Amino acid sequence: MSEEMTVEKVQEILNGSPFIKAFGMKIVELDAENERIVMTMPMHPIAERREGTGQYHGGAIASLIDTAGDFALIARLGGPVPTVNFRTDYLRPAMNTDLRATATVRRAGRTVAVVDIDVHDDQGRLCAVGRGTYSTQLG
Amino acid sequence: MSEEMTVEKVQEILNGSPFIKAFGMKIVELDAENERIVMTMPMHPIAERREGTGQYHGGAIASLIDTAGDFALIARLGGPVPTVNFRTDYLRPAMNTDLRATATVRRAGRTVAVVDIDVHDDQGRLCAVGRGTYSTQLG
Amino acid sequence: MSEEMTVEKVQEILNGSPFIKAFGMKIVELDAENERIVMTMPMHPIAERREGTGQYHGGAIASLIDTAGDFALIARLGGPVPTVNFRTDYLRPAMNTDLRATATVRRAGRTVAVVDIDVHDDQGRLCAVGRGTYSTQLG
Amino acid sequence: MSEEMTVEKVQEILNGSPFIKAFGMKIVELDAENERIVMTMPMHPIAERREGTGQYHGGAIASLIDTAGDFALIARLGGPVPTVNFRTDYLRPAMNTDLRATATVRRAGRTVAVVDIDVHDDQGRLCAVGRGTYSTQLG
Repeated sequence: MSEEMTVEKVQEILNGSPFIKAFGMKIVELDAENERIVMTMPMHPIAERREGTGQYHGGAIASLIDTAGDFALIARLGGPVPTVNFRTDYLRPAMNTDLRATATVRRAGRTVAVVDIDVHDDQGRLCAVGRGTYSTQLG
Repeated sequence: MSEEMTVEKVQEILNGSPFIKAFGMKIVELDAENERIVMTMPMHPIAERREGTGQYHGGAIASLIDTAGDFALIARLGGPVPTVNFRTDYLRPAMNTDLRATATVRRAGRTVAVVDIDVHDDQGRLCAVGRGTYSTQLG
Repeated sequence: MSEEMTVEKVQEILNGSPFIKAFGMKIVELDAENERIVMTMPMHPIAERREGTGQYHGGAIASLIDTAGDFALIARLGGPVPTVNFRTDYLRPAMNTDLRATATVRRAGRTVAVVDIDVHDDQGRLCAVGRGTYSTQLG
Repeated sequence: MSEEMTVEKVQEILNGSPFIKAFGMKIVELDAENERIVMTMPMHPIAERREGTGQYHGGAIASLIDTAGDFALIARLGGPVPTVNFRTDYLRPAMNTDLRATATVRRAGRTVAVVDIDVHDDQGRLCAVGRGTYSTQLG
């Protein structure tokens, strides 16, 4: 566990990514004890599936899932953790809402880690779930 | 099979999506007989993982995979086919390159369809593979 | 919700499957309110990966995951729910232990449902996790 | 590439597994150049979903997929390659038929490998597809 990781430090790393910045993703909670982080993504014109619908494109949601899972491990390990693979399941269309992703580390082993990510809308409804495997061999 | 679907018509639908347009995705081949489409995505500043690296963020690649799989079915069925779930495997970092996604329908049933998507860089190296399940119940 | 489903009735359906019976899978809890069931599978010679190791073959664990997910929905819907697809992640080798699968319905829609399955050993350690999509269109 | 691996040697390893032997899985082709193997599984009473239907339980098919993917890498690397995770998609019910799994290595890296597995019935119809990630760090 990297003791010094804070919401501010993780946000600084997030901001270093043009992709993540373009979607306005922010870290809002970092619960080191439970190996859980919470990230938000606001509705933004480039995230829209069809113009004027206010509905998220699935790719924007998958990107939030991949990123939240990644940063749950960065918060823990302090360094880059490349995604090996991940699965996204869409449960409900997400429309005209901010999204909130909660990423929980299920298992962090010597070579790989598995993280679950739940995505809720601003009504607290579960819109999508993700499960990712990340490579934990730094350097 | 929707006989009238052409590269131009599919591109017109693609352009109606702010998300897809932001990433510059284009359809370049539509092989109705083999139920296969080819889409490209150029390197673009918002797709970058870290500033100045020229490396794609995984979310951009996952978005290309989801979209290519979706449009392989739209080309066939002529209407919207929501993604049920999909898996993305990253095989090689994609850097300073355009990406080319080839989506092949493996099975299109009455309620769901399964599509495989291979993503190559401009050297022809396989960078990522995707597999998606889509809902084929229109209306 | 099918009100009449009980542990005994679900076990009767389980016993009608030669595959499930060969692995000795049993339902031990059915929590209708939380849409959760618990199934167990004892160590059995045919589940062994290598002779004399006492380690489960991954296929036996994947089979428990698929079955537990399926029956979480059968308990709810009262009828057959074919698996569309599922993912299995192995977190720890499972050796010389009974296994306990907890299946929780994450979302049951009109056409598909998503179920999460956690597999623990008899020390309460998480050995594997599964996530499955099932077809909920009966008849 | 382990030069000495032959169909006979791989079958000998397969036979050392009570689980694999119970399902009668056999290797029938080993194409080292294309990193592809073919395995078969005969219909067997313990593989049946419901008594008397002749339909495979999904768990038996998932087990064939996991095993075929694993042995495509064992044939190449000569040693144990634990499954990290895998996805199974069911495309068509498999009834009263032997099954034939073709496993193709898509990418074998330093730490993980990705293998695709197609499962056909004896009429040559695609019944299921699998995609697995395996750990390639021996010892």
